[in-house]
Amino acid sequence: MAATGQFASHMATALDEARAAAARGEVPVGAVVSGPDGQVLAKAGNRTRELNDPTAHAEMLAIRAACTAHGSERLTGCDLTVTLEPCPMCAAAISFARIRRLYFGASDAKGGGVENGARIFSQSSCHHAPDVYGGISATASAELLVSFFAARR
Amino acid sequence: MAATGQFASHMATALDEARAAAARGEVPVGAVVSGPDGQVLAKAGNRTRELNDPTAHAEMLAIRAACTAHGSERLTGCDLTVTLEPCPMCAAAISFARIRRLYFGASDAKGGGVENGARIFSQSSCHHAPDVYGGISATASAELLVSFFAARR
Repeated sequence: MAATGQFASHMATALDEARAAAARGEVPVGAVVSGPDGQVLAKAGNRTRELNDPTAHAEMLAIRAACTAHGSERLTGCDLTVTLEPCPMCAAAISFARIRRLYFGASDAKGGGVENGARIFSQSSCHHAPDVYGGISATASAELLVSFFAARR
Repeated sequence: MAATGQFASHMATALDEARAAAARGEVPVGAVVSGPDGQVLAKAGNRTRELNDPTAHAEMLAIRAACTAHGSERLTGCDLTVTLEPCPMCAAAISFARIRRLYFGASDAKGGGVENGARIFSQSSCHHAPDVYGGISATASAELLVSFFAARR
């Protein structure tokens, strides 16, 4: 579906972060953490190559930065907007951070861990699950990934 | 089972890291990343509270430090020894980092993601699974956790 409402602007910001990641040679995924009033607390794109850090996915960097800004390991009442369905690592971090709502773009049948694969939030061992809204600006998110990988073949 | 062999010394180091975490008021879990020759590349204990970072589990900190030391986002040929069964976040990071062997202590029926819950390495979307050896020094690992939480009740 097309993005409308407040999260449309967060998804636009996340897409900008994804484009910036692609320009750095990173897989183009971008994420934004927003506070209860909608203000942007943190935004990030993938930096796994630059940082030599397999955990430096956009969501992880945005959550960590927002927690630092917030002075807490929990982001109760905050939302996360990301261009791609989070992987199991990021989904578990989203749960630990007590994210209220997760908005994501394209589904990721191969690597996703929300509506695919490990389905982290559906596990009985998951102590906090956000409300999940998928498929937002999915075409734009997916096109970034497709053109990134096509250019590398 | 009792720890014998090279990983016994890594588990002893991981237990020391777990005890140090408890002394800092952190959930007592410790981890060690060792290289192909058995040398310790990185060791860490939980620091989620100190760092206000829900992703700062022992395994994540040890993997990130080892990657920095190694200058790569992959730790091919390296092993991870941790006192508790990794959660789904850490299990996915272990997969991304291409850890060769995972040695862990106590099982975690409530929060684990290896032999419990999301069983990350058994998912078809998991592109790399380490060899897994659980139950090493499990009693010592579990006792640390039990006494930590008993003291807080």
